[in-house]
Amino acid sequence: MALYAKLIKGIFQDSVTLMLMSRDLSALPDVKRVAVMMGTPANRDVFRETGLWHEEFAAATPNDLCLVVDSETDDPTVAEVMAARVHERLSELARGRRRARYPVVRSWRRARQLLADANVALISVAGHYAFEPARLALQDGCHVMMFSDNVSLEQELELKTLARGRGLLVMGPDCGTTILNGAPLAFANRIPPGPVAVVGASGTGIQELTSQIARLGSGITHAIGLGGRDLSEEIGGISAAMALDLVSRDDASRIIAFVSKPPAPAVKARILDAMQAIGKPVVALFLGRRPARRDIGNVHLARTLDEAAALAVELAQVDARACALPNVEGRGICGLYTGGTLAAEASMLLAEALDLTQDATHAAGYMLRAGGHRIIDLGDDVYTRGQPHPMIDPTSRNEMIRGLAKDPAVGVLLLDVVLGYGAHPDPAGEVAREVSALRAARGAESPIVVIATLTGTAEDPQDRDSQAARLEEAGIVIAESVRAAAVLAARAVAAQMQSHAEPPALLRAPPAVVNIGLRGFAEDLHANGIRVVHLQWEPAAGGNERLRRLIEQLQ
Amino acid sequence: MALYAKLIKGIFQDSVTLMLMSRDLSALPDVKRVAVMMGTPANRDVFRETGLWHEEFAAATPNDLCLVVDSETDDPTVAEVMAARVHERLSELARGRRRARYPVVRSWRRARQLLADANVALISVAGHYAFEPARLALQDGCHVMMFSDNVSLEQELELKTLARGRGLLVMGPDCGTTILNGAPLAFANRIPPGPVAVVGASGTGIQELTSQIARLGSGITHAIGLGGRDLSEEIGGISAAMALDLVSRDDASRIIAFVSKPPAPAVKARILDAMQAIGKPVVALFLGRRPARRDIGNVHLARTLDEAAALAVELAQVDARACALPNVEGRGICGLYTGGTLAAEASMLLAEALDLTQDATHAAGYMLRAGGHRIIDLGDDVYTRGQPHPMIDPTSRNEMIRGLAKDPAVGVLLLDVVLGYGAHPDPAGEVAREVSALRAARGAESPIVVIATLTGTAEDPQDRDSQAARLEEAGIVIAESVRAAAVLAARAVAAQMQSHAEPPALLRAPPAVVNIGLRGFAEDLHANGIRVVHLQWEPAAGGNERLRRLIEQLQ
Repeated sequence: MALYAKLIKGIFQDSVTLMLMSRDLSALPDVKRVAVMMGTPANRDVFRETGLWHEEFAAATPNDLCLVVDSETDDPTVAEVMAARVHERLSELARGRRRARYPVVRSWRRARQLLADANVALISVAGHYAFEPARLALQDGCHVMMFSDNVSLEQELELKTLARGRGLLVMGPDCGTTILNGAPLAFANRIPPGPVAVVGASGTGIQELTSQIARLGSGITHAIGLGGRDLSEEIGGISAAMALDLVSRDDASRIIAFVSKPPAPAVKARILDAMQAIGKPVVALFLGRRPARRDIGNVHLARTLDEAAALAVELAQVDARACALPNVEGRGICGLYTGGTLAAEASMLLAEALDLTQDATHAAGYMLRAGGHRIIDLGDDVYTRGQPHPMIDPTSRNEMIRGLAKDPAVGVLLLDVVLGYGAHPDPAGEVAREVSALRAARGAESPIVVIATLTGTAEDPQDRDSQAARLEEAGIVIAESVRAAAVLAARAVAAQMQSHAEPPALLRAPPAVVNIGLRGFAEDLHANGIRVVHLQWEPAAGGNERLRRLIEQLQ
Repeated sequence: MALYAKLIKGIFQDSVTLMLMSRDLSALPDVKRVAVMMGTPANRDVFRETGLWHEEFAAATPNDLCLVVDSETDDPTVAEVMAARVHERLSELARGRRRARYPVVRSWRRARQLLADANVALISVAGHYAFEPARLALQDGCHVMMFSDNVSLEQELELKTLARGRGLLVMGPDCGTTILNGAPLAFANRIPPGPVAVVGASGTGIQELTSQIARLGSGITHAIGLGGRDLSEEIGGISAAMALDLVSRDDASRIIAFVSKPPAPAVKARILDAMQAIGKPVVALFLGRRPARRDIGNVHLARTLDEAAALAVELAQVDARACALPNVEGRGICGLYTGGTLAAEASMLLAEALDLTQDATHAAGYMLRAGGHRIIDLGDDVYTRGQPHPMIDPTSRNEMIRGLAKDPAVGVLLLDVVLGYGAHPDPAGEVAREVSALRAARGAESPIVVIATLTGTAEDPQDRDSQAARLEEAGIVIAESVRAAAVLAARAVAAQMQSHAEPPALLRAPPAVVNIGLRGFAEDLHANGIRVVHLQWEPAAGGNERLRRLIEQLQ
């Protein structure tokens, strides 16, 4: 093996461009491998560790391009030949970029002249150099998304503290994915518009979650990345709190889905508090940690990405249904169940959603009796002694439904309708008649929301479809499962979501972006109709740290 | 209020018939309420507690019909008028029953003469009298389903112990629902045939679970009820163990779904052991209790009925896919992920499914390294230093895929394919090419199953559909989520399900039923083409306990 090297001074290129170039050159005949990288300290380490170090590189600065050829030839001009190809390829790229219809500039000031209303800086330069442009952007009033990784924790904290003081958001560092009003920032998928806002400290987590939401036929308002360390004890979830606040004030974001690794305990408590204060349904996925309980008021804990997506989409459907329900005065939920298991499940889920304790004694069939809510199992011995099961004989439930005429504190009535052999021949008819009578007795000033589950199939003797139609004629909402019924009931008695005159500025319209680093990101934004200026970034003072600091002091 | 009563001696009718009659009579003019019940001690208590007791009833036996009329009239003949109506209605019923095309008999012996291959007795007489016919049926070699409740725990244990000794199953007492080869026993829905066997100690639980399975487009082989107390410490899950054994030996039952209240701790351990020994995927729902972890080998713990149904249907789909996979020699799973979050989720789920410990150190990107399995995050610093992220540059993963040519212990390869802006323009193409090369290198004697997830949407620049097609051309299975991929991978390396020459006798064909108690159950069976004999049951010795015991001693 022989190594031939060439140092090309003063040409800065992004790492993706150089990687693709290295791969193409490595495929040429007569060479085993070609590597082209900028002469940063980290890259110089990589050359050493992979056995590709060459003495030429000792003089390299981060602004110099290091080319090394591993070849079995003994012709030392092979490095010159490769260098010529590198120049050729870079010229091609430059020509292609000049054709791009978005401006390419060399200074932040020029970028702002061309895009006066720029509000986001997308930074993907090597981590070692990412701090400066981020600070500059923040000081100039722009939100920052840092795709760059290898930014120190101290720098992250400094940037986020600076940003917070100015009401600006720092997404990242090491933030792979953000989508603002459909604008793809860095790694992002094209997701249909919809009611779910995604906030996350995981790039592929956001990508998979949003893709699953799309697969399930729903969509997103925005997806906001935080960077993988935002929920660490050191950073304290500064960006998470700000992102949650942003989407909470965006009325189009009806449901919030949050994904991250398990946060530091103190941070988790704060984040959960913030989620509960939002008053919108929140799905929270703390990756790799089994949630101790699934519902904490409006916060639903998921365990896997597909489960989180399914929950968010289900909650969006529930939200759409809840919005169509009348406002009820009574805030109590009353469940009258003929199926004991269905009553037990409704009780468990409502107890979680409303933070209540289930009734352990089950006296008089009460599965839940707390906070003005009650769930009763009418199959309990108290109700069946001397008469058939309420699935056969609806008398006892009918009486209790009628009794709600005099109980205006009940705003939601939960029921089960069980079909099949053995059951009443027309349970939906019984329920529909009693509910209509109840509504008439309560009058228009005391509306009641009635939600029923329908156990059975189209093949059952009662015919599920015609039973469903009978319920719907009576204005009874049919829930697809006891869980869906419980979630909708809890929503129906919850406080109304606050409404806002307009969304926060960052979410109001697609962003105007200054792209600093990988060219491809600017191209993707441009292709999506997003206004973008590419700032052709080079390390200050040619990457010389001491010189850079000196210049800074003089400025 | 005035009460008028009439005792009609020596006419036994089931409680549902009498309830319906009571309701119809109560709707007539001039009466406030009419109640018709058999003169059992329990019913006599009900008369007393509801203020409907009449001196006439003091002489009533369980074989006498007690009629009471609450009316404001002072015409005492109202009771006679009502009694006449009762007779009229009973005659109508008798005429209808004579028209029924199934035999009605008065003794067990006669029932067996008419239905020599009867194998199930369905018992729904009042609980106080249910023990005798159940014992008789068991002694005569029939399985027993006891719809009856109020059977004592001692009697239940005695019956189940007797049955177990004879290889017979007792479903119940208080068992609301069973479906055997489509035959509805008691309260049951018409569920399409399919691969899921349901076993449960909850009647409405089984009804809702099977209905949800049907709603999701799947179906059942059988649904076997156990009775609500089977998993108590006293009964010890005798019937649960037998039912699980039955469905485990039924090859058509590919997936088992189990539902019950939380069992007694000692019973739960035994049931979970039995489930794990089955070697088929099992979904277990212990109602109202949050599972501590979701997967215990082949046992998947669910929390709600709809979740249990969805899991069972998903596992059935996985099973169908797994059956189409080649048998692999290598039992190791290797996951090569470009997305860190996807790697983490796959690791968590595989660790649960295969009972492994995740790698806490994450050295060299290993998220899991145990039991011959490994999941690697190729986005880890080790792999990205000096080169772009593997979502952009597939080189490092391509190399590792090729390396599996020399690793025959790996039988399953898990991959992610991430689309979207920023990602490689043809990630599926890269994967497909490398997998094809790997397959060629390993040869036909060392097959490998490759399962990929595909993150992204149809609108992404790479076009999800054509990327999916590219993977499928290369024989790569596409899983809809990381969870689906992990479950399928675990199945692919699991031991083959044992196969049986034929199913257990009870499950081989629709049952032949002797129905004892509620007439409606016989009618439903008959309407479903199930061979049934109705045994017109009356308490021995007219319900006189002492006389009954005397007769028994003389027999």
